[in-house]
Amino acid sequence: MPAGRDLSALVRPQTIAVVGASRDPGKVGHAIFRNILAGGFAGTVHPVNPQARSINGVRAYPSVLEVPDPVDLAVVITPARTVPAVLDECGQRGVRGVVVISGGFREIGEEGRRREAEVCARVARWGFALVGPNCLGVINTAPDVRLNATFAARLPHRGQIAFVSQSGALTAAALDYAWTRRIGFSQVFNLGNKADLTEVELLGALADDPDTRVILLYVEELSDGRRFIEVAREIGDGHPPKPIMVLKAGRTAAGARAVSSHTGSLAGSDEVYGAVFAQAGVLRVESIEELFDCAAAFASQPLPRGRRVGIVTNAGGPGILATDACVRQGLELASLSDATVAELRRALPAEASVRNPVDIIGDADDRRYDAALAAVLADDAVDAGIVLLTRQATIDVEATAAAVVQRAAASGKPVLASFVGALPVDAGVDRLEEAGLPHYAFPEAIARTLAAMARYTSWIARPRTEVVTFDDVDRARARAILTAAPEGFLSETAAFELLEAYRFPLLPWAAATDARAAEARASAIGFPVALKVLSPEVIHKVDVDGVRLNLASAAEVSRAYEEIVRAVAARVPGAAIHGVLVQAMAGRGREVILGLSRDPQFGPVLLFGLGGIYVEVLRDVAFRLAPIRAYSARRMVEETRTSAILRGVRGEPPSDVAAIETCLLRLSQLAVECPEVAELDINPLFVYAAGGGAAVADARVRVARPAG
Amino acid sequence: MPAGRDLSALVRPQTIAVVGASRDPGKVGHAIFRNILAGGFAGTVHPVNPQARSINGVRAYPSVLEVPDPVDLAVVITPARTVPAVLDECGQRGVRGVVVISGGFREIGEEGRRREAEVCARVARWGFALVGPNCLGVINTAPDVRLNATFAARLPHRGQIAFVSQSGALTAAALDYAWTRRIGFSQVFNLGNKADLTEVELLGALADDPDTRVILLYVEELSDGRRFIEVAREIGDGHPPKPIMVLKAGRTAAGARAVSSHTGSLAGSDEVYGAVFAQAGVLRVESIEELFDCAAAFASQPLPRGRRVGIVTNAGGPGILATDACVRQGLELASLSDATVAELRRALPAEASVRNPVDIIGDADDRRYDAALAAVLADDAVDAGIVLLTRQATIDVEATAAAVVQRAAASGKPVLASFVGALPVDAGVDRLEEAGLPHYAFPEAIARTLAAMARYTSWIARPRTEVVTFDDVDRARARAILTAAPEGFLSETAAFELLEAYRFPLLPWAAATDARAAEARASAIGFPVALKVLSPEVIHKVDVDGVRLNLASAAEVSRAYEEIVRAVAARVPGAAIHGVLVQAMAGRGREVILGLSRDPQFGPVLLFGLGGIYVEVLRDVAFRLAPIRAYSARRMVEETRTSAILRGVRGEPPSDVAAIETCLLRLSQLAVECPEVAELDINPLFVYAAGGGAAVADARVRVARPAG
Repeated sequence: MPAGRDLSALVRPQTIAVVGASRDPGKVGHAIFRNILAGGFAGTVHPVNPQARSINGVRAYPSVLEVPDPVDLAVVITPARTVPAVLDECGQRGVRGVVVISGGFREIGEEGRRREAEVCARVARWGFALVGPNCLGVINTAPDVRLNATFAARLPHRGQIAFVSQSGALTAAALDYAWTRRIGFSQVFNLGNKADLTEVELLGALADDPDTRVILLYVEELSDGRRFIEVAREIGDGHPPKPIMVLKAGRTAAGARAVSSHTGSLAGSDEVYGAVFAQAGVLRVESIEELFDCAAAFASQPLPRGRRVGIVTNAGGPGILATDACVRQGLELASLSDATVAELRRALPAEASVRNPVDIIGDADDRRYDAALAAVLADDAVDAGIVLLTRQATIDVEATAAAVVQRAAASGKPVLASFVGALPVDAGVDRLEEAGLPHYAFPEAIARTLAAMARYTSWIARPRTEVVTFDDVDRARARAILTAAPEGFLSETAAFELLEAYRFPLLPWAAATDARAAEARASAIGFPVALKVLSPEVIHKVDVDGVRLNLASAAEVSRAYEEIVRAVAARVPGAAIHGVLVQAMAGRGREVILGLSRDPQFGPVLLFGLGGIYVEVLRDVAFRLAPIRAYSARRMVEETRTSAILRGVRGEPPSDVAAIETCLLRLSQLAVECPEVAELDINPLFVYAAGGGAAVADARVRVARPAG
Repeated sequence: MPAGRDLSALVRPQTIAVVGASRDPGKVGHAIFRNILAGGFAGTVHPVNPQARSINGVRAYPSVLEVPDPVDLAVVITPARTVPAVLDECGQRGVRGVVVISGGFREIGEEGRRREAEVCARVARWGFALVGPNCLGVINTAPDVRLNATFAARLPHRGQIAFVSQSGALTAAALDYAWTRRIGFSQVFNLGNKADLTEVELLGALADDPDTRVILLYVEELSDGRRFIEVAREIGDGHPPKPIMVLKAGRTAAGARAVSSHTGSLAGSDEVYGAVFAQAGVLRVESIEELFDCAAAFASQPLPRGRRVGIVTNAGGPGILATDACVRQGLELASLSDATVAELRRALPAEASVRNPVDIIGDADDRRYDAALAAVLADDAVDAGIVLLTRQATIDVEATAAAVVQRAAASGKPVLASFVGALPVDAGVDRLEEAGLPHYAFPEAIARTLAAMARYTSWIARPRTEVVTFDDVDRARARAILTAAPEGFLSETAAFELLEAYRFPLLPWAAATDARAAEARASAIGFPVALKVLSPEVIHKVDVDGVRLNLASAAEVSRAYEEIVRAVAARVPGAAIHGVLVQAMAGRGREVILGLSRDPQFGPVLLFGLGGIYVEVLRDVAFRLAPIRAYSARRMVEETRTSAILRGVRGEPPSDVAAIETCLLRLSQLAVECPEVAELDINPLFVYAAGGGAAVADARVRVARPAG
């Protein structure tokens, strides 16, 4: 990771001033100060309060300027209007890190927005690293720091999970929940309004934190998607890679409205966020529960090599539910080797089922779990283990937990357990969790978690590809076309020329302004051809009788030309008719759609989908931010549910997916090099059987000159 | 509900004999007897054990014959081979109800299967109502019964949920889980191998149980789907209707394999189960967690009138997550009325958000919750309430819980709460759950639950339709066709004649055995027509050049006839050519598929889907068991994701869905009246714009005579 700002004053402060610390136990300014003390902070903390001589027994100072030691970190809880002045004092005192807990900024409207601008000005003036405003605070559980600068009651369990969240309330609730499940953290950051420090910068810092193995994000909006992708990818390419999991709130339209009124920021559309997360190699989850289900496993278990699961259970029903859930999540039930089956037959009673799911039946004890698990985890066909236990009078659950923990550790494979139906108030579950083996009340959560791990394994193992730049592109021609074009839609011929400049394959075409020319063009292209009227006034050519298909001879072409001109002139009086487009008739192929649009927040967005009415109804399309790498082009195609059609169904040959990928990469390059192309639709692109290439049949390009 | 067998000896026994009760605390025969005593059984329980004088201090008898009182219920835990003899003794003693806990029957293979047959013979001889064998037992929490005849440790909390499960281990785990969540039960039945008593019979009994408000099923296989549908529908039509929720294990192919090895029974395919549950008005869930999430709400809350949700939260983040989850689940965020908004403005501080989700902000206390909830729940636009609370130092969580409970009860609307992140070890959660207001750790589970409630409301409110019998059907003709046909595929003409007998709309067609006849038929039908070779040896007509389309004149028809006969004779030497099918060219329309197959377990299954390659790839089809009612025909069409296309997209007119529904109803009637039709595909059925009807273009019918 390239060195970013020095955040040590925020993360590992020696001396803290709590500005706005209060003697009133009902106030946040009291809670924060008390929590820093109660958390066992390894450094020194000073309360700052002009009205108090001491707080919680600790000597208070009227101003940060009067604190005797050099102050690394100021935690500010004073009223919003006083914050700019407090920050100036902090700057004068040499403070480098600031956490502004106080609310009353951007989130309350125009006045708050002005105040937040003042805070930003102070950050620029004094060079602070600033968290907030309007936040819960920060936590670092490292034994030589032990900092709980939040108003959440407890210092969390120590662990290897970093949690970065935009919502204070969500952070507090998540910490409560994780506490009950004994899930530990390295660092916690609640970023609030993100006036200075953002997720992207923190990711960079956490990448280098040896205490952090997994990074969790709760995000309502990201401002710099492109940079987020770069930083997250670097973290995924690290040794070892640190998995990043994200819960994005405001997915749905109604949710997005709520974001707007909550943070006052304009959220990008959910599809674009999906593209950002896919390109960043970030695992997207749907709920806080899933976030921590995954985090617990990623933080404690090795990654599986693949998606083949071995299940050991002492009861059939849960085994079936686990199997259902695994298959639903795209995992596979491992086929155990003959040797494993023989070993299981030897070790287990006759009534046991020695096939996967391995049912060691109701009277199993810890030794039987041990033997079965040893055999299953040793099998090369098994990438991950699931242990299910339903309580029976005869079993020593704690001894079984111990056996599971030991076998799991020895195997080098991920193992997740469910003592089915048990919530985290249970001796057996305690034993598992103390040993860092994640426990889940039911097998469905295990399957979901293992599937996420397997997806991450695939991501890590993906081919490393680059952003492709095609040198055969005629940039000068493209520039000339775009410079000459007024804002709005390009003419069809200009759009085709632009695509030709970027070396897209097009159906052979030519423009003709009279019947004779149309005949000549058609002969040059080769029959049969189609004729389509060229007129800026005509949007739907077929509706005004402006199209003739399958013209097989020069005579047919010339007759069609006259008919078209006559029909359009009659149907659209006053339309400027710029002749016709002569186009080779498309060979039979699959229709796909490629698109480019520009997101106000994230810039150029590429789209891929299969053409036709079904795809429109099903919204089965894939997005990526441009520029894309070759791998992303491939994934865009694979990701759509209907892409199975391109692989060949009903005995039809597979389509030339490579040709689609090349078009996507060229579109990506165009998106980057031609910022004035605001929107571009290639619809349809005909794709032929593998090796046969593809051809653009129609395109629409909208030009808008970026301001400035 | 029509009166079924008298199950009172099982459900409300006065006197119980525990046959195989044991002095050894490690044995199931001990646990069962002890649990009946410890549960506070309201009647008398006698241990039966020839080797013991007393068990747990209670006088034991060597045989059930020697028990002094008349015995209602025998609980049998003796080894499998002794069970038939024990049952004979029970019969002689006048026992009416039996629970066979012992395993060693059908689940262990052939020998066990024979033993189970002996058990069934005893049921027939003595007229027992028998639960099991190979089961966990039964529970009834009614204060005047208090029966825990299981080896699960505790009598569950008293409640209004009946739980019927096939898996003993699953039952035990679910009881543990429900205990921790304070979810109570009226009755619990673990059915094991279901040698006698099945889910269907129990449903009938539970329908009449005044203590049961909700019925939960865990099912691995159902033997009588048709009867299940009837009974479940009757329960749904009761006053009040009792919601039934089902968790079906063995959904996936791999899961279904596990079922086979587990219970030794052949599971029907998952699609057919889906059809059964849809027709039965049963709510299908995906996990035990979801089962109890739903049960808790259905058992305690009124049904919502619709799907419009009002959210009250003290923090933005959870409000956004709740909104996302609601929208994802198909719920709507209610638009609060002006009056409600005004009232909220009056009652809440200026920084609060008075739009849905209503954010009463972090310093909210119980009175603010009370005021906001009162306003939101009073709004006619709100069908259900969601209360979210994240802990803040300033709030009295228990007082808030009390306020929520009271406002919810007064509103007559369902209200579900999440003290976000809290698991069931929490004073506030306790207060909610004690008062019967369901609590969920996170808003996602609330949204899922409310969506299930709204679906049930729709089911209850559905139009009550009947199975339609069309009297215009020519049964005699159909019978003649089928009687004359050999097993295997009907000829195309016979298939068309069968469909005509059932008054399906067909494209005009006729068979012709020479060119002259073909001309005449074509003239009668009207040009253009298609010609298709008729030959039992030809499956894919196009491949052997056996099809000619768009023939516009008699001359073209006669030439095509000769060409077809010549081409097919050359390409398929020796093929019997029975002339050609002359068919009107289909008008443009949407293609859909209708199908009939016969499930070995459930009988005739109907299929609907849109035609074309996308649907095949997406497996977007709907199933129902025949016969169907008019409502089911409509739902089959609506249920497919691609059916949006039939409603009209891209400005195209809606299709004639009524015509499809009529075809489905006719197919249903055919399925019932023609048992020798093993399979039938109508592919495609062309559907025209609304009012334009539909036409069968092609059909395939396979005949198989049912054995016997």
